[in-house]
Amino acid sequence: MLLSNVRKSTVRHGLLEKGDKVLVACSGGADSTALLLALLELSGEYDLRIAVAHFNHRLRRASDQDERFVIRLARKLGLPVYVKREDIRAWALKHGQNIEEAGRERRYRFLRDTASRVGARKIATGHTLTDQAETVLMRLLRGTGPRGLEGIAPCVDNLIIRPLIDIERREVEAYLRSSETPHREDESNRNLDYLRNRVRRRLIPYLEKSFDPKIVRHLGKLAEISREEEKVWAELCGAEEERSIIRRKGTVFLDARRLSALPPGSGRRLVRAFLAAVKGDLRRFTFRDVEAVRLLAEQKEAALPGNLFLSRERGLISVKEKTKPAPRFEHKWDGKKRLAIPALRLSFVGRIKKGMTKLPSYDDRRRALVDAGKINFPLLVRNCREGDRYRPLGSPGRKKLAEIMRSKGIPPGERGRHPVFISGEEIIWVSGLPIADDHRVTPTTRRVLVIERR
Amino acid sequence: MLLSNVRKSTVRHGLLEKGDKVLVACSGGADSTALLLALLELSGEYDLRIAVAHFNHRLRRASDQDERFVIRLARKLGLPVYVKREDIRAWALKHGQNIEEAGRERRYRFLRDTASRVGARKIATGHTLTDQAETVLMRLLRGTGPRGLEGIAPCVDNLIIRPLIDIERREVEAYLRSSETPHREDESNRNLDYLRNRVRRRLIPYLEKSFDPKIVRHLGKLAEISREEEKVWAELCGAEEERSIIRRKGTVFLDARRLSALPPGSGRRLVRAFLAAVKGDLRRFTFRDVEAVRLLAEQKEAALPGNLFLSRERGLISVKEKTKPAPRFEHKWDGKKRLAIPALRLSFVGRIKKGMTKLPSYDDRRRALVDAGKINFPLLVRNCREGDRYRPLGSPGRKKLAEIMRSKGIPPGERGRHPVFISGEEIIWVSGLPIADDHRVTPTTRRVLVIERR
Repeated sequence: MLLSNVRKSTVRHGLLEKGDKVLVACSGGADSTALLLALLELSGEYDLRIAVAHFNHRLRRASDQDERFVIRLARKLGLPVYVKREDIRAWALKHGQNIEEAGRERRYRFLRDTASRVGARKIATGHTLTDQAETVLMRLLRGTGPRGLEGIAPCVDNLIIRPLIDIERREVEAYLRSSETPHREDESNRNLDYLRNRVRRRLIPYLEKSFDPKIVRHLGKLAEISREEEKVWAELCGAEEERSIIRRKGTVFLDARRLSALPPGSGRRLVRAFLAAVKGDLRRFTFRDVEAVRLLAEQKEAALPGNLFLSRERGLISVKEKTKPAPRFEHKWDGKKRLAIPALRLSFVGRIKKGMTKLPSYDDRRRALVDAGKINFPLLVRNCREGDRYRPLGSPGRKKLAEIMRSKGIPPGERGRHPVFISGEEIIWVSGLPIADDHRVTPTTRRVLVIERR
Repeated sequence: MLLSNVRKSTVRHGLLEKGDKVLVACSGGADSTALLLALLELSGEYDLRIAVAHFNHRLRRASDQDERFVIRLARKLGLPVYVKREDIRAWALKHGQNIEEAGRERRYRFLRDTASRVGARKIATGHTLTDQAETVLMRLLRGTGPRGLEGIAPCVDNLIIRPLIDIERREVEAYLRSSETPHREDESNRNLDYLRNRVRRRLIPYLEKSFDPKIVRHLGKLAEISREEEKVWAELCGAEEERSIIRRKGTVFLDARRLSALPPGSGRRLVRAFLAAVKGDLRRFTFRDVEAVRLLAEQKEAALPGNLFLSRERGLISVKEKTKPAPRFEHKWDGKKRLAIPALRLSFVGRIKKGMTKLPSYDDRRRALVDAGKINFPLLVRNCREGDRYRPLGSPGRKKLAEIMRSKGIPPGERGRHPVFISGEEIIWVSGLPIADDHRVTPTTRRVLVIERR
């Protein structure tokens, strides 16, 4: 029964070719042990060469026993076996991932590397239809759109194959019992802190008992249909993505006019493709974020999760990093003592120089020289404010400070980070900009105030 | 809170236009009573005229009390109210429907008729986001593809509107409590024999408690995204359906070559459209049936549910009604006594006429006249068999019986229902076909055997 179903899946999903060398990922648990035996039974028909791979996550006390079990099993079956041990907890900590994610990533890395090293054309994993149903349910419970329902693929990259994907776990376990091969129990499967274990041990049995004994098959079918429909979507959206997602000077833009011509059903998918292009993946983005992009009006901005915001200018939507608004600060300064601005983690020192014959070199950013005779101490040093104006050195007249900053390419979020030095009502210098023309050093200047950033 | 959410849904789904007359379907339960109050509160903004409709299914003892409650409520609010009573149990019985189905059909019939009679442009129903989540879960539990996930539409035909569709039932109930308006409890909601009640009272509370308190919102979102994606599918498939589903001489055909050029994702949808075109709806068809159509090879047949089967000829797939194969029979007959063929519920009588000067009129179906002098009695009367041949009256030579039947348009399933009359080794007549040329009545005939079907 199991073998004939594995055969069917193999044909239906095109999993094996004659003469394939198959690396079977075996944890020692029921599913992957059954997978190994089943593929061995089919190896004659398909002329397969089989090798075993085991990845020891070192997460549990029994991990090393699992490893020894798999090595013994492979030897008993006369198969080559490749093993790698890695401390996944440490790795996850170091790379800021959760343990499950890290384990998956490292395990597949090991499997792909090993397959490539030993010349295996296929990597077989023991995912069953029950895993599939669990995955679909988990997605439904956490919130998903139609895309999330495609679940686990029977075949990835024509390399990773899942011959048990159409077969319920109970059938797999019955096959294993009838073969009288022992397997290892992973005690972490009993830990109901994990969502998957709660779905497996509580929710699915409850749904089978109280609603429909065929629930696992129903969800598996939904996954299969969804997966095929996703391929149609990919085809359909691919062309639209190429036209509407524009990469220019390292920035990804979305053509808002094309987007608004699409019906919501395809528009949402285009937005998701755009967000994935910007951020690499869709984690943290919700339906609300997708709608924020889709419905963003011209000249408007909208918040996204993390430090991001959307802006739409001239029909192009882009995602920008929000700079934190600069903290407010305001200090009185006598021009002599060191001026600390803790809010910006900056400090300035001032010196009065008399009768300077040779002015030191200066730049707008690090150092200003102004006519001390025209200054009323103490100076006021604060963030720029709406309405600030002054006449920068050499300029014909007064301008709005915001306008000067814009023309210098200082983005709005950065503007509060340039301390403004004020004498009386007059701006004499803005760090990063030219000094005020009215306070410049002239031949009649007797004392020069030198302000230096430290 | 509820009102502002109703306003949002109204805008988002385009539910109301200024000056609409709205017929509010009110059962007297919490949801529809809250709907009525909410629309009344919004009636100023939208310049609405509101009327109340109540359909009394007469299914429960309390039905008449519900009716009186709604009439009193409408009068208290100063609104016109329209009521219809119908014995749904009797109606369902008469029309072979289940009670839920019959109730829905008759209720919407009443609502549409009433709206049209009183000039209401909209019919509002009290479906909530919780109903939506229940519907999606029920579909998942019973087995569904992506199409089943779109659930309840916020608006149908720009006539039926569901202003509460984005709002959870608990919020609706809180609003009703705060308005201090009483409502009726439908005690049949407590009956856990109904799937919906089990989902509502057991499954959703369990999922909220043990998995995610936002599960109703998640499922509602899935329904909404699915609904918009279904519109894209409808657009996409519509053109393909027009090309591939062919109606000719009262039969619906599916162009199998076009079908096989499609990826499974869209091919399955085309097959579903074809089956719906053939049978009116998709009840009883499963994923397996869809795959049977999609993968049917040329010259092959496949079974469908009910009395149907598929056949593919010359690149066209059609659905045919299966005729039961005719029961086998074989009788000896002396040509005189009444011949009964119980298997076909037919009988024949024979007479020998001597020296007939005027032959009676005859037709192939009811009566045959043959030269009795050329016949060896008893005749053998049996079903046709593979390899039967004879020369029909006026034909230049012998032909296969199956070929003669085919050319007369007798379908294969019917062919066994035409008794074959045999003298020695020679077919002399097949009921429904011409007699054998070699046994025709000629000027030299002295005795005529007249066979008549009774």
